Amino acid sequence: MYTYELDFKVRDYECDLQGIVNNSVYQNYLEHTRHEFLLDSKVSFSDLHDQGVDAVVARVDIAYKTSLRPGDSFISKLGVKKEGAKYVFHQIILRKPDMAVCIKAKIETVVVINGRLAKGYPVFDKLVGLDESNTK
Amino acid sequence: MYTYELDFKVRDYECDLQGIVNNSVYQNYLEHTRHEFLLDSKVSFSDLHDQGVDAVVARVDIAYKTSLRPGDSFISKLGVKKEGAKYVFHQIILRKPDMAVCIKAKIETVVVINGRLAKGYPVFDKLVGLDESNTK
Amino acid sequence: MYTYELDFKVRDYECDLQGIVNNSVYQNYLEHTRHEFLLDSKVSFSDLHDQGVDAVVARVDIAYKTSLRPGDSFISKLGVKKEGAKYVFHQIILRKPDMAVCIKAKIETVVVINGRLAKGYPVFDKLVGLDESNTK
Amino acid sequence: MYTYELDFKVRDYECDLQGIVNNSVYQNYLEHTRHEFLLDSKVSFSDLHDQGVDAVVARVDIAYKTSLRPGDSFISKLGVKKEGAKYVFHQIILRKPDMAVCIKAKIETVVVINGRLAKGYPVFDKLVGLDESNTK
Repeated sequence: MYTYELDFKVRDYECDLQGIVNNSVYQNYLEHTRHEFLLDSKVSFSDLHDQGVDAVVARVDIAYKTSLRPGDSFISKLGVKKEGAKYVFHQIILRKPDMAVCIKAKIETVVVINGRLAKGYPVFDKLVGLDESNTK
Repeated sequence: MYTYELDFKVRDYECDLQGIVNNSVYQNYLEHTRHEFLLDSKVSFSDLHDQGVDAVVARVDIAYKTSLRPGDSFISKLGVKKEGAKYVFHQIILRKPDMAVCIKAKIETVVVINGRLAKGYPVFDKLVGLDESNTK
Repeated sequence: MYTYELDFKVRDYECDLQGIVNNSVYQNYLEHTRHEFLLDSKVSFSDLHDQGVDAVVARVDIAYKTSLRPGDSFISKLGVKKEGAKYVFHQIILRKPDMAVCIKAKIETVVVINGRLAKGYPVFDKLVGLDESNTK
Repeated sequence: MYTYELDFKVRDYECDLQGIVNNSVYQNYLEHTRHEFLLDSKVSFSDLHDQGVDAVVARVDIAYKTSLRPGDSFISKLGVKKEGAKYVFHQIILRKPDMAVCIKAKIETVVVINGRLAKGYPVFDKLVGLDESNTK
């Protein structure tokens, strides 16, 4: 289910007054994982934006299980599949070394091309295992 | 349904390379709204933490509808009710002046007292309209 | 010396594990104050960027005096003058209501037009009290 | 002069609407480098805080030279020495692979123990090459 993973380490400035990583920061981790996943396939989120192609988050559903703390290392994993016009990412963050589940997330994204919602985009379809003939 | 609201204005540093407010920043807006809602009832998130009482987010479900942009003003509204041991916040962010829905969110929180999950906490129960006799 | 001011309130997510506003966040406050100062004169940082005109920070010098804490309100003030090709902002943040100095900052900015360093820009020169004939 | 270094990679969410890393984010990089430098010597900023010992930034002076962009990797280097009661960090960030200087910074920190300014702290003195007999 998870086809890509990235190692991280908590940075102290990401922790809030409760002494744990702030809830919003996990969205940063999740986004960075998705963008590195793209880069790993030679797709640059930033370059796409410059070409008028934006991957846009339509919905996030995040279950928070175990809080990350200063000094913690963790793995962020993702898998992606297409559902209709959406690219749906299943993401999980696991604390090292005990592999406690920190969060589980489902992130629904859509593609906007020059400001208009598209049914997909060839380079993204390739990432989810669809060849270009399926993207129409 | 919404019982509290707070006015905001987008700050340019909250916008990412797409020129819109980054997805994670909405969680900051939502959190700040909840904490100001508490303060409005003389409850300080920070003071509670110092007393060993933490309100902790267990799940967030956010639907992104319209992106906020540099210069935009907006209203953040919330309502809260108790479901079992959870305090569930329904939150919405509306762009001014056209009141376009930017996001709709459901945020489930629980109370942790001295590191242990609690069934509730009197000051929070009061906020959702339960009197103290119902919190046992 | 200070010609513009803006009211703020600390947001809990801006505080780090020390329970005080993180040092980097003051740069956010300072930037937002500068951009609101511009907007107050009908100059949009974001619109300028879209036109190829970027105000760029060349140097910051910030003295930290008193830490802001959860619940604190504060005033951010600025003054600006031109020194050579630089627009130099003097900024101060004062905690309310005791007006304790939180930080004092000197921010040197330059203008980059289509990627090239410029000697100034008319709308900025107007802001520092230079008329357009002086900007050559 | 620089005795410690740490590798980083820009994360897209750190970039602002100008498409470059926001100025405030460099302070995050600098702080994380200092804290990792401490951890490398088995000193935890977070644990020290829990013991009532806080390293506090008194002044930052940052010269911005070359902007980091999406996809950039970089090295963050630091050296530290003691000047009176201050621990002064000299820090530099270099873009890879061309080693262009992104920023140069001087960060002055002091030690606050249980809320009172101290002349130093043994574990920090050891880091700057002073033995404990010199810290009195």
